[in-house]
Amino acid sequence: MRQVFMVEAPDRPGLVHEITGALFRSGLNLMENQEHVDPDSGRFFMRSELEGSAEPSHLLATLNELHLPGATFRLRPLKPRRAVMLVSREHHCAADLLVRHTFQELNLHLVSVISNHSHLGWLVEKFGLPFHHLPAERVSRETHESQISALLEAADPELIILARYMRILSPGFVARWEGRIINIHHSFLPAFVGARPYQQAFERGVKIIGATAHFVSDDLDQGPIIAQDVIPVDHTYSAKELARAGRDVEQRVLAAAVRLVTEDRVFICGRRTIVFP
Amino acid sequence: MRQVFMVEAPDRPGLVHEITGALFRSGLNLMENQEHVDPDSGRFFMRSELEGSAEPSHLLATLNELHLPGATFRLRPLKPRRAVMLVSREHHCAADLLVRHTFQELNLHLVSVISNHSHLGWLVEKFGLPFHHLPAERVSRETHESQISALLEAADPELIILARYMRILSPGFVARWEGRIINIHHSFLPAFVGARPYQQAFERGVKIIGATAHFVSDDLDQGPIIAQDVIPVDHTYSAKELARAGRDVEQRVLAAAVRLVTEDRVFICGRRTIVFP
Amino acid sequence: MRQVFMVEAPDRPGLVHEITGALFRSGLNLMENQEHVDPDSGRFFMRSELEGSAEPSHLLATLNELHLPGATFRLRPLKPRRAVMLVSREHHCAADLLVRHTFQELNLHLVSVISNHSHLGWLVEKFGLPFHHLPAERVSRETHESQISALLEAADPELIILARYMRILSPGFVARWEGRIINIHHSFLPAFVGARPYQQAFERGVKIIGATAHFVSDDLDQGPIIAQDVIPVDHTYSAKELARAGRDVEQRVLAAAVRLVTEDRVFICGRRTIVFP
Amino acid sequence: MRQVFMVEAPDRPGLVHEITGALFRSGLNLMENQEHVDPDSGRFFMRSELEGSAEPSHLLATLNELHLPGATFRLRPLKPRRAVMLVSREHHCAADLLVRHTFQELNLHLVSVISNHSHLGWLVEKFGLPFHHLPAERVSRETHESQISALLEAADPELIILARYMRILSPGFVARWEGRIINIHHSFLPAFVGARPYQQAFERGVKIIGATAHFVSDDLDQGPIIAQDVIPVDHTYSAKELARAGRDVEQRVLAAAVRLVTEDRVFICGRRTIVFP
Repeated sequence: MRQVFMVEAPDRPGLVHEITGALFRSGLNLMENQEHVDPDSGRFFMRSELEGSAEPSHLLATLNELHLPGATFRLRPLKPRRAVMLVSREHHCAADLLVRHTFQELNLHLVSVISNHSHLGWLVEKFGLPFHHLPAERVSRETHESQISALLEAADPELIILARYMRILSPGFVARWEGRIINIHHSFLPAFVGARPYQQAFERGVKIIGATAHFVSDDLDQGPIIAQDVIPVDHTYSAKELARAGRDVEQRVLAAAVRLVTEDRVFICGRRTIVFP
Repeated sequence: MRQVFMVEAPDRPGLVHEITGALFRSGLNLMENQEHVDPDSGRFFMRSELEGSAEPSHLLATLNELHLPGATFRLRPLKPRRAVMLVSREHHCAADLLVRHTFQELNLHLVSVISNHSHLGWLVEKFGLPFHHLPAERVSRETHESQISALLEAADPELIILARYMRILSPGFVARWEGRIINIHHSFLPAFVGARPYQQAFERGVKIIGATAHFVSDDLDQGPIIAQDVIPVDHTYSAKELARAGRDVEQRVLAAAVRLVTEDRVFICGRRTIVFP
Repeated sequence: MRQVFMVEAPDRPGLVHEITGALFRSGLNLMENQEHVDPDSGRFFMRSELEGSAEPSHLLATLNELHLPGATFRLRPLKPRRAVMLVSREHHCAADLLVRHTFQELNLHLVSVISNHSHLGWLVEKFGLPFHHLPAERVSRETHESQISALLEAADPELIILARYMRILSPGFVARWEGRIINIHHSFLPAFVGARPYQQAFERGVKIIGATAHFVSDDLDQGPIIAQDVIPVDHTYSAKELARAGRDVEQRVLAAAVRLVTEDRVFICGRRTIVFP
Repeated sequence: MRQVFMVEAPDRPGLVHEITGALFRSGLNLMENQEHVDPDSGRFFMRSELEGSAEPSHLLATLNELHLPGATFRLRPLKPRRAVMLVSREHHCAADLLVRHTFQELNLHLVSVISNHSHLGWLVEKFGLPFHHLPAERVSRETHESQISALLEAADPELIILARYMRILSPGFVARWEGRIINIHHSFLPAFVGARPYQQAFERGVKIIGATAHFVSDDLDQGPIIAQDVIPVDHTYSAKELARAGRDVEQRVLAAAVRLVTEDRVFICGRRTIVFP
C-alpha cells in the first residue's frame, strides 16, 4: 500500500538531499514529492508518496540519525480516514459527502453523523450510517457539547467535518480536537464573517459570492483556510437566490477540502495552510 | 446613430407596455431591451438601444404623457464619453486603458490624465494625451484637491477614472462628481478594505484574490460595486507575488467597468448597482 | 401560481409593446421579462414570468388578435416538470439529481429511472423511485430501444435526462422526443467528440477540461448546447484523474441544464440555444 | 544571481537524492524545487531555483559522475530572455507584451518586432523597438520566410513569439527554431482549429470561449499546449462580439505563456507539456 510521508522542519541547506537519502536507504521509492519553504518562518514542508515495504520504525530510526531538531515526521498508509460529520438542518453538503463516501470517491471512512436537529436522520440512515440526534434545546451549551464529545471520544475520529453545522463550538472543544475540525463557511472569507452572509452579500451588492473551507480555531471564521471557490452573481439574485446558488459552491469546496485533508495534503502554518494538491 | 435609453421609475402594472408604446409612437425601434424590478425598493429599471431619427424632445414629450411621477429618463447617442483619468505611480491599469482608448476598444474619449506623481508622464504623452502632474507634497490637501478640481471643471468629464490613484478624495469632491467617479480597489471587496490589501490577503492565507471596480462614495471602499473578478492563488505566493498576479485582475476589472459605465449599462440603486451587460 | 410565458416570433417593430399589451389586457402582471432578437434569423424570443388569474385560453385569444404569423406562444404554470432519467453505470450525475429532486431544489418531478445496467438500482430505490433495468445484451438494438420507448410512452415525460447514459439513440427515437432529450457530454464540446474524451484530453495535453449539456439531435454530440463549464487541470492528471475531476463538472453542468430547461428558460434556435438565466 | 536548473532524465530510484546531492556538493542552495515523473514515458522532470556561486562547469562535472544516460541538464541565470515578436494587423497581444516588456513585468528582452503589415509600426516604435515591415504580397512564400529568417538569425532569439501572426510557417522554419516558437490561437484548442474560430464558435453556439498558447509544431494548431483560459459567453454575442471578448483572453494567455517559458518553467514531453508554475 502506498504511504504518505509528511515532514515539517526548520529549513537548512541540503535538507531535501538528506531526507530523500533516508527514504532511499529505507528501501522506499519516491512516487510523488512536493516541497515548500515558508519564507516568513523559515520552515520546510514536504509531502511524499512512497512505495516499498519499509517498517515505519526503521524509517524513523534512519531519520533520527539526521539530527533535525524541531522536525516532525508522519508516515501513514493512504487509507480511508475515520471521520464524524456534524450537521444541522441544511442537507446539501451532508448529502454530497454521503454520496461521495458511499461510492468511495474520497479517502474517507465516515463513522457516524451527529446533529442538533432530526431533519437529516432519514437521509443518513438511508446511506447506512448511524445518526445521533442531540437536541440543543432545553440543555445547557456545556451539556450539549459534552454529549457530542462523548460520542466523538468513542468514535475516535481523525477528522470532524462540520457540514453546515450551525452552532459555535467552545474553545475547550476546539482545543481537544485541534487541527482536526474542518468547517464550511458560506462566504468568501474574510468577507462576511458571522451570521447570514448571503444577506450581507445581497446588501453589499457584490458581483461574486463564494464559500470557504477552513480549520476551526478559537476565533470564529478565522481558522486557516484550506479551500475557497466562487461564482459570479448579479443584481437579479435576491438573498434567497444567493443562498441557493451558493449551496453548490459550499458543497464542492467542502468536498475539495475533505479530499485534501484526508490525503494528508494540508499543513497548518500559523494562520495559513500549505496545500500540496 | 444608435441611442441608449435609460429609465428608472416606480414599478406599476403595464409599465413596459406603456414605455415601449411611447418609443414606438416616437418612431424609435427597440434593438435591445433589458428590464429589472428591484424587489426591495419597488423601482423599475430599463435600458434600451434604439434606432430611428426621433428628436429626444419629442420622445420626452411623449413620455411625459404617461404620467410617471418619480421617473427619470435619459436618452443619449452611443458615442464616446468624455473622461479624465487620475493615476499615481502604478502603470498597469493606466497603460491598459491608454491602449484600449487608442485602439477605440471602449466607448471612451480620454481627455487628459492627472497624477500626483511624475512617473507615468512619459507613457501618457507617448499616447498623445495631456499629462498634468500635480505633486501632493508641500501643499495642503485642500490646495491639491482644488488644483485637480480646476482641471476637471475645465475638462467637464462625464466620467472620472481612478486608475490606481492612491489618495483619498474629500466628501465635497465626491459630492461634486457624484455617480461619475469610478475606482479600482485591489481586493475582492468587502474583504480587505483599506491599505495594503495584498499584504492582508497574504497574512490571512486566502486561496483566491480579486479586484473590485466601484463608484466612489463618501465611505472609503463602500461605494456601489460595478464589477469584480478573482484568480486562484496558493501558499507559494508572497505578498509581492499576490500584488503582481493581482495587477492583471485589476486592469481587466477596471476595463470591464469602464465599458459598462460608458455604454450606459449601470444604474445605481442605493448601495447596489443594476448592470445590464 | 406564477406562470411562464414563452414567445417565439418573426421580429417586427413594436412587437414588445404589442405583446405586453396583450398580457396587460388579459390581467397578467409581468414579474420578469427577457427578450432577444437573433440577428441571423430575424426571430424574436421572449420569456416572461406572469402573475394573475387569466385563463390561458383568454390570453391566447387576445394574442391571436395581434396577427403574428409564424409566432408560437406557450403559457405554463411554473410547476415541476415530469421527467425520466436514463443512466448506465456511472453514479455521479444520477445521484446528484436524485438528491436535488428529493429536496425539491429543481423544478423537477422525476417519474422513474431506466438503465441498461443494474448497478444503480439500489441507489434509485433508496430515493423511492422506480428503477427499470433493461439489459442491452442479447437483444437487438431495436428491441432494446422499443422497450425503453414503451416505458417512456407510459410515463409521458416532458423531459428525458441522459445522466451519463452510454448508448446512442436511434434517429427515430430522437425524432419522437425532439427537443425533450438532454444529455451530458464529458468534454468541452466541440473538443473531443465521441468516445473516451478524457483519454483524448490527456493525450492532447489540454490545461482545461469541461462538460457540455446539450439537446440530443441526430448528429452525435452536435445538438444545441444548453450549458458548459470547465476546470483547470495540469500535467499531474492522468486520464483517470481527469475523469475523476471531470465528474464534478459534469454533475453541476447537467444540474444547471435541468434547472434551465425545467424553468422554460431555453429556446432552440437552429444549432444554437437562447438561454434566459 | 539566481539560477534555474532544469533536468530531464529517465526515472530511477534515488534520483532526487542523487541530483540534490550533486547540487549540495557544488555549493548550490535549493531555493525552490519541483519534480514530476511522466508515467507513460517513465521520464523524470525537475526544475530548481538555485543560489550560490558555483561554476556551471563544476556542477556539470559533478552531475556527470552520477552516470545518468539519457539525461539532459540546463543551468541558466534567471535573466531576461532574448525574444523577437511576429505580428500581423491585430494589436492587442502585441500592445500588452510591449507594455509588460517596457515595465519589466516579464523575464523578457524584446529585441525587435517583425510584421507582414505596416499597421503596428507606429506602436512598436513608440515603445522604442525596431519594427521590420516585410510585406507578404508580391513575393513568394519562400522569399518572405527567408527574409524573416535572415532577421531572426541576426537577432539570435531564445524565443519567437507569434502575437496574432496570421501566416503559417513552413516545416523547415519550424524545425530551425524547434521548441522556441510560441503561438496564441484564438480558441480553446482542440475546439475550432483552423481559420475563423470565433465564427465557428458562434455557429456552434458554445457557452464558453477561450484561447490557447502553444509551441508551434509542423501540424497546424497541434503543438504542445502551454496555457489556456476561457470566459463565459451567451446567445447575445455575435461572432464579432465573441472576437472582441476573446481578445482579452488571448492577451492574458499569451502573457502567461511568455512568463512560464522565459522563466524556464515549461518542459516539452511529446505532445504535452510539463509546467511548473
